Amino acid sequence: MSSAGGKRVVIFGVGDFARLAAVYLRTDSPHEVVAFTVHERYRGEPELLGLPVVPFEELGRSYPPEAAAMLVAVGFSRVNRARAEIYDECKARGYELVSYVNSKAILWEEVEFGDNCFVFEANVIQPFVRIGNDVIVWSGNHIGHDSRIGDHCFVASHAVISGNVTIGERCFVGVNATVRDGVTIAPDCVIGAGALIMKDTEPGGVYSTPGTEPRPHRSWELDL
Amino acid sequence: MSSAGGKRVVIFGVGDFARLAAVYLRTDSPHEVVAFTVHERYRGEPELLGLPVVPFEELGRSYPPEAAAMLVAVGFSRVNRARAEIYDECKARGYELVSYVNSKAILWEEVEFGDNCFVFEANVIQPFVRIGNDVIVWSGNHIGHDSRIGDHCFVASHAVISGNVTIGERCFVGVNATVRDGVTIAPDCVIGAGALIMKDTEPGGVYSTPGTEPRPHRSWELDL
Amino acid sequence: MSSAGGKRVVIFGVGDFARLAAVYLRTDSPHEVVAFTVHERYRGEPELLGLPVVPFEELGRSYPPEAAAMLVAVGFSRVNRARAEIYDECKARGYELVSYVNSKAILWEEVEFGDNCFVFEANVIQPFVRIGNDVIVWSGNHIGHDSRIGDHCFVASHAVISGNVTIGERCFVGVNATVRDGVTIAPDCVIGAGALIMKDTEPGGVYSTPGTEPRPHRSWELDL
Repeated sequence: MSSAGGKRVVIFGVGDFARLAAVYLRTDSPHEVVAFTVHERYRGEPELLGLPVVPFEELGRSYPPEAAAMLVAVGFSRVNRARAEIYDECKARGYELVSYVNSKAILWEEVEFGDNCFVFEANVIQPFVRIGNDVIVWSGNHIGHDSRIGDHCFVASHAVISGNVTIGERCFVGVNATVRDGVTIAPDCVIGAGALIMKDTEPGGVYSTPGTEPRPHRSWELDL
Repeated sequence: MSSAGGKRVVIFGVGDFARLAAVYLRTDSPHEVVAFTVHERYRGEPELLGLPVVPFEELGRSYPPEAAAMLVAVGFSRVNRARAEIYDECKARGYELVSYVNSKAILWEEVEFGDNCFVFEANVIQPFVRIGNDVIVWSGNHIGHDSRIGDHCFVASHAVISGNVTIGERCFVGVNATVRDGVTIAPDCVIGAGALIMKDTEPGGVYSTPGTEPRPHRSWELDL
Repeated sequence: MSSAGGKRVVIFGVGDFARLAAVYLRTDSPHEVVAFTVHERYRGEPELLGLPVVPFEELGRSYPPEAAAMLVAVGFSRVNRARAEIYDECKARGYELVSYVNSKAILWEEVEFGDNCFVFEANVIQPFVRIGNDVIVWSGNHIGHDSRIGDHCFVASHAVISGNVTIGERCFVGVNATVRDGVTIAPDCVIGAGALIMKDTEPGGVYSTPGTEPRPHRSWELDL
């Protein structure tokens, strides 16, 4: 593989997250993205950002596990089960899965995390946090001290996960959601955008708030 | 003009934003602020932060477009129309309008933006974002990948504008507001503090939430 | 005391905050943490993180004010009165109380603050802010220009304190709370997690929102 801890990486996925992952790895990691891959039926164009899109069914021929590591850059489809399944399959085929932490995320040496994690910019992950495998932490979240995030979770942007929180596997935490300190979020929960979680949740629970309704007047009638 | 891309800049405005803009440009840009300007009837003191306040009506005499660039540091009065009008007038008079991006904002090379933009500290602007002219992005916002912000918008602090969002011209987005991914905000909307926008909005729509009501007890009665 | 402005520091407290304070001072300050201290009846183990836990009643023997400074790392018990009382007692005994500002907080030269302040990572404190004594600012908050925070306040994470806000003594501001610009928060208020404060508050007022309720369906029934 290439120099200084950098690896040749094949990104699984061709959607927004895959495209972003390529930009982030190229600009802000020692890794070299060499190809995208996805199941043949989702393949679309044969190239993306100037790189080949290889059918996942045939990946072993052009990029066997000895020649490349992988990153599964799939979002939260089916409450993270889609990504978890591909993660498992890549591992079963023998691929190493790399984790990426943006250079403008703030972590402490005490933080532990697994493989196929992707931590975007401006996250704060306080000391004594433990993060599992295959956890996506989008941008600008707070993960408070001593909290634990289970495998295959997806945390969107600006969420506040306070201290001593436990989040089970495959949870989705939406943008600007708030979880108070000490709470346990059971596996497979969906915490919607802007939701406020003040106590423990049930497995598979869905916590979402309706959007703000429009007022009867127009902005040009306001005294702003 | 001065060295290394730095310009002599006249700031339009004498309010909070103008005062802050002077501090930010002085401390964190190559530019040199040489004066403030405002219409004669709003002028008040002849000096601000040790610099002259020149009547806008006479600005061409002391600081013609050949001698200075400008920055219009006006807030969101009349849902950004006040700033837009002055922006247009400065351009019509031939002034170059500078943009400022704080050195502690996080941007990617793929971000495009226009003139008279002011991006405060701790903002994250993800790849493939396009920002128009005369857009104020206060502090600590998230602007997700592939989103577009129209001309003359004002985004307050800690707002989450998720990925693939489109925001029309002259919108106001309040502190800690949340816009979910893929939503289109029509022109001239007011998204109030803490509002949650889950679907497309109507032009000129006002989306605001009432503040949290007090509980019947006092803090010293709590078991905190 | 030790080199380059660094002091020998005894941390008051043995809870989460005290433990974190030791990590932060060790990793990100010139200070050397030499011991913890707490009242005899709360002492528990005689060591914490490899350092002695000294009974506060006897602190003067092993670490008199000439030999060590202090940091009171106590949370918001009794709406910050517990910490305020210990702060007062340490001062009365002659101890210097150190303040800590994380190297990844963003402050401007115009910010003033007192002693025993603890500012975590990723905070933005804009110009012309004044912060009193014994103020804890957890992670990722925005404190807008010209705002004032009174003595003994505790601000949790991701709060937005807009510009020109005044916060009285001993207030608690919860995670992801929002205070609009120009508002005055009276002393001893509790602003709960996710609360939205749009107008002035009464002394000792409690402003909290209930958590988001679960929806009737399970996450695996969603079309996500």
